[in-house]
Amino acid sequence: MEAQTMAVRIDANQIADRAYSLIVDLYPICRSITGEGVRETLRMLGKHIALEVHEVPTGTHVFDWVIPREWNIRDAYIKNSKGEKIVDFKNSNLHVVNYSAPLQAKLTLQELREHLFSDPTHPEWIPYRTSYYEETWGFCMAHRQLAELPEDEYEVFIDSSLTEGQLSYGEYFVPGELADEVLISCHICHPSLCNDNLSGIALATFLSKHLSQIPLRYSYRFLFVPGAIGPITWLAQNQGCAGRIKHGLVLANLGDPGTSTYKKSRRGDAMIDRAVQAVLKHAGSKYEILDFSPYGYDERQYCSPGFNLPVGLLTRTPHGRFPQYHTSADNLDLVQPPYLADSFAKLLGVIDILEHSRKYLNTNPHCEPFLGKRNLYRPMGGFQDVATQQLALLWVLNLSDGSHDLLDICERSGLPFTAIARAAEELAKTDLLVLKDS
Amino acid sequence: MEAQTMAVRIDANQIADRAYSLIVDLYPICRSITGEGVRETLRMLGKHIALEVHEVPTGTHVFDWVIPREWNIRDAYIKNSKGEKIVDFKNSNLHVVNYSAPLQAKLTLQELREHLFSDPTHPEWIPYRTSYYEETWGFCMAHRQLAELPEDEYEVFIDSSLTEGQLSYGEYFVPGELADEVLISCHICHPSLCNDNLSGIALATFLSKHLSQIPLRYSYRFLFVPGAIGPITWLAQNQGCAGRIKHGLVLANLGDPGTSTYKKSRRGDAMIDRAVQAVLKHAGSKYEILDFSPYGYDERQYCSPGFNLPVGLLTRTPHGRFPQYHTSADNLDLVQPPYLADSFAKLLGVIDILEHSRKYLNTNPHCEPFLGKRNLYRPMGGFQDVATQQLALLWVLNLSDGSHDLLDICERSGLPFTAIARAAEELAKTDLLVLKDS
Amino acid sequence: MEAQTMAVRIDANQIADRAYSLIVDLYPICRSITGEGVRETLRMLGKHIALEVHEVPTGTHVFDWVIPREWNIRDAYIKNSKGEKIVDFKNSNLHVVNYSAPLQAKLTLQELREHLFSDPTHPEWIPYRTSYYEETWGFCMAHRQLAELPEDEYEVFIDSSLTEGQLSYGEYFVPGELADEVLISCHICHPSLCNDNLSGIALATFLSKHLSQIPLRYSYRFLFVPGAIGPITWLAQNQGCAGRIKHGLVLANLGDPGTSTYKKSRRGDAMIDRAVQAVLKHAGSKYEILDFSPYGYDERQYCSPGFNLPVGLLTRTPHGRFPQYHTSADNLDLVQPPYLADSFAKLLGVIDILEHSRKYLNTNPHCEPFLGKRNLYRPMGGFQDVATQQLALLWVLNLSDGSHDLLDICERSGLPFTAIARAAEELAKTDLLVLKDS
Repeated sequence: MEAQTMAVRIDANQIADRAYSLIVDLYPICRSITGEGVRETLRMLGKHIALEVHEVPTGTHVFDWVIPREWNIRDAYIKNSKGEKIVDFKNSNLHVVNYSAPLQAKLTLQELREHLFSDPTHPEWIPYRTSYYEETWGFCMAHRQLAELPEDEYEVFIDSSLTEGQLSYGEYFVPGELADEVLISCHICHPSLCNDNLSGIALATFLSKHLSQIPLRYSYRFLFVPGAIGPITWLAQNQGCAGRIKHGLVLANLGDPGTSTYKKSRRGDAMIDRAVQAVLKHAGSKYEILDFSPYGYDERQYCSPGFNLPVGLLTRTPHGRFPQYHTSADNLDLVQPPYLADSFAKLLGVIDILEHSRKYLNTNPHCEPFLGKRNLYRPMGGFQDVATQQLALLWVLNLSDGSHDLLDICERSGLPFTAIARAAEELAKTDLLVLKDS
Repeated sequence: MEAQTMAVRIDANQIADRAYSLIVDLYPICRSITGEGVRETLRMLGKHIALEVHEVPTGTHVFDWVIPREWNIRDAYIKNSKGEKIVDFKNSNLHVVNYSAPLQAKLTLQELREHLFSDPTHPEWIPYRTSYYEETWGFCMAHRQLAELPEDEYEVFIDSSLTEGQLSYGEYFVPGELADEVLISCHICHPSLCNDNLSGIALATFLSKHLSQIPLRYSYRFLFVPGAIGPITWLAQNQGCAGRIKHGLVLANLGDPGTSTYKKSRRGDAMIDRAVQAVLKHAGSKYEILDFSPYGYDERQYCSPGFNLPVGLLTRTPHGRFPQYHTSADNLDLVQPPYLADSFAKLLGVIDILEHSRKYLNTNPHCEPFLGKRNLYRPMGGFQDVATQQLALLWVLNLSDGSHDLLDICERSGLPFTAIARAAEELAKTDLLVLKDS
Repeated sequence: MEAQTMAVRIDANQIADRAYSLIVDLYPICRSITGEGVRETLRMLGKHIALEVHEVPTGTHVFDWVIPREWNIRDAYIKNSKGEKIVDFKNSNLHVVNYSAPLQAKLTLQELREHLFSDPTHPEWIPYRTSYYEETWGFCMAHRQLAELPEDEYEVFIDSSLTEGQLSYGEYFVPGELADEVLISCHICHPSLCNDNLSGIALATFLSKHLSQIPLRYSYRFLFVPGAIGPITWLAQNQGCAGRIKHGLVLANLGDPGTSTYKKSRRGDAMIDRAVQAVLKHAGSKYEILDFSPYGYDERQYCSPGFNLPVGLLTRTPHGRFPQYHTSADNLDLVQPPYLADSFAKLLGVIDILEHSRKYLNTNPHCEPFLGKRNLYRPMGGFQDVATQQLALLWVLNLSDGSHDLLDICERSGLPFTAIARAAEELAKTDLLVLKDS
């Protein structure tokens, strides 16, 4: 039973501080689905983990899709007729519609307006916009500023390029005893937005680092991929071995103050679905469980009918439900270390279940064993709640008939998985319980 | 996808007006389980649809039952000693207990009273009573009148006959592509009562007429039968082909202001049960779902254990739950065209599902297809709600794996069947979706 | 249909009065898991039923356990230095920790205190304590008294013995038509405590007596056993025939004013689980259903994974939830005849279902039969509620298709089992219904 040890040994708050520092470092970079921003991001992650970076050429066919041209941007601004930069990419990379084509032009306010985007409901915030698959250009700005733009001749400059190049993504494989894999996937295509999804990137990085340092039963595959086109590319290039993925999570929005939310896999009752629910149920705070729907993050691809992988989505406030979503207010203030720590601890709890929910056999199945002579009723280290722990012993003995694993016992008993796993650990030290599966 | 077109093409309000006119015409006829009233009713329905009328002789054995003698009535009254008709069949055919034997007699009030029936809770209304299988006679009257009857010698006259004859019922078969049938059944044995069941008769008539004018996948069988003995007779004479009935509805009480109510078939989870629930759920008003019970209308016979047909009951206020039930107040005021129109639209919605809930195959099941290049995100004709329609596209693609039909997708997505069917229709025009079943 | 007759014939109040008298007689005896107190108890039960008493020698191995030494006690007290008995076993056998080793000693207050037990939350009550498997000694007393004990030299005397001997238990087998058995088990190891479990002992005694006097389909096995070691011993000695037990109940706490509570068997959906719920649902008062857990009474042993017998627990207020539990306040005032009568009537109801829930076949499954000609609509003796009884007829006919027994029909119809069973009884007198199973 490594998990308990693991959960005790690692300090989620310390990890959260490191994750927050990484978010601070990654925040300024202008990422997109391709380009130098992604590469720079992957390089920075590579300082923490031995990330493998893949480059897939423009024009490559990946299922129904084609890898697009690579987009890079150096500068962009709008100047008024006095030569004042009224909108400047250097102040916020959200100002430019992601994937905007290069441009140098002088435009009237009316001409310009068709390419300006704002969010009237939050007049101070810059919204985030993209146009990956339809060539165009545009600027995003605070609605308050847009509304007051005077008639003028504006100089518009976008120093970007759309060229034959590569789509870049990162992959990190942590081998375990089994060839069976757990997939952790996060999207890396958003520019200066913190919760969506620097929070996911940072926690995935430190989770993978942690797992690489401990013995594991499952192998773990971490994907740092641009949204949609990223998992589609990986799945196209790894179609044959996708079946090895036995459990999976997409990570996003893990640093805001909202309650933890889990969106179930398409299967709905996969072990990952049950494991996350077991963790959230006993975490001591409110949470929300959503049924699968084919709209959302990259679980859309993993859960497409041809793959139907058991991959769910772990978030705090779901996309679109926090007002700062896809605006400049999704910044370093929205994401805070305590929420990152809470999310990280829940991830560890889920992995604890995946790693340790084995089937055991009660070797003394006829009536209860005489526990007194085995000294099992003593308080166990770290567990104040002796009654819970003794009940857990009885549950593990009663249900270890070869058809229930520890997660089954956790669910039926209503006790936390940690108590059930600890009871199994204690019982396995005696003659009363043996591991059933190999 | 005919259904949408169908639903759009037909004006439920116009149908409801015609149905109401038919009800007005049928209202005065004194129907019973046999006799001229039934024949006259069937003749009038025959003006709208090519109804086949069956006549089954008195004494014919139908399962455990025997076709009774034919009842006809020409006149009936009670006169007081002054020769005044205080109760007159010509004023309301409810005045005579249905199937009353012929009689001419002079009686004291005391003798007469044993044959008088009233409803003290509604002292102005004439109740409706029958005695099909036990020979007797009787009169029904307003309780207010009955309570004030003076001591007198009364002349009682019933000019009826109980003779060897026929049981008459109507049948209308609308052929479709398949030999598989949808059964629509309504009872025609009630005299001047509107909701129960001229409403059902009229809507069945115009529904069958409508279906006869459009291409259909299923074949539809409409039965206009006297209650209980009618379906028993039909089932006895068609036992061998009852298995062709794949879905069915009994129609009754479809014109009152109450909420729509569906009583499930004995199976409980038949497609008809799911289809009606899907329609009522999205109809925008309250509704009620009742579990099957062996008490009620003719679903009792279709759902008897030897047949166990998937036949439910669609009503508005169920029998016995509206105060006018089986009284003279179930009249042309209780039933109103807007409620008939609402019921008719729901019937069309159910048939839409039965006809169009096919299984499709997503031909691009690995990851989502690139919808942008197929112009599928444009607003579709008639659908203002683009977000719903786009979500429907994703759901149809995600679940069209060969094991879900469109009703399954409707249920799991929580979207209206119309949106799901429209999405399938649009996708089937591209290379992305093909019909699975033949 | 004997059950109805049975339920009518027997007067639960009369039984409850006899049961209460038996409780009064048994109350003074100092029982434990072995010893003369158990034998004396079994002798007294033997005056009512032909109980077979088994004696199992100390040292016998029963699964993981060993039969302990036999404990007997004649006297015990604590005297102060004036020679006054301040605690006296003769006043209450709860004063001595059950299984206390023999002792004669003079102790200071401080030395004595380590062996004194009280309940501060109920300062007037003597708590009940045991130490079967760890040799020690102790006294229990009212907290009020304990708190005021002065410094003194105390004389402590326990005239007990722990010797090679026997474990005694009682068994009573009531044969029925079938070799299949219903197990009724109650624990007999508690000294002067009434609800836990003289109530269970007394009701089991009179239930077994009643069953021995009527024809039965099932065979019934009653066990009067010391807790835990008792059923373990029986199961060890009868392992081969435990499979004959098709239904079972552990009885405890059946005389207090609390609501009836049923704890389901480990299987959760066994017929006994469904039967008890059906009885409690229609009993007209509040009740509680608990899921199985491996903590509780002797269902722990019967439901151990190696046996997994369909044995639930019937109580009123569950153990630990009434304040008098395991104290001197669980006395002849807590238990009252009306609650014993109510519990007994529910037990009869459960047995009624087990005995009479057969599968029947509707011989006329195509459409409803013509009930009128069979005179089945007449009010039936003892049933005022004609509408319920007529509905029950229709339900029995509709569901007697060979795959539903009467309990299934009771559950689906929502009608009481008594109404369903009576309807089946009436129908079976006609040509319409025949027993399916042999």
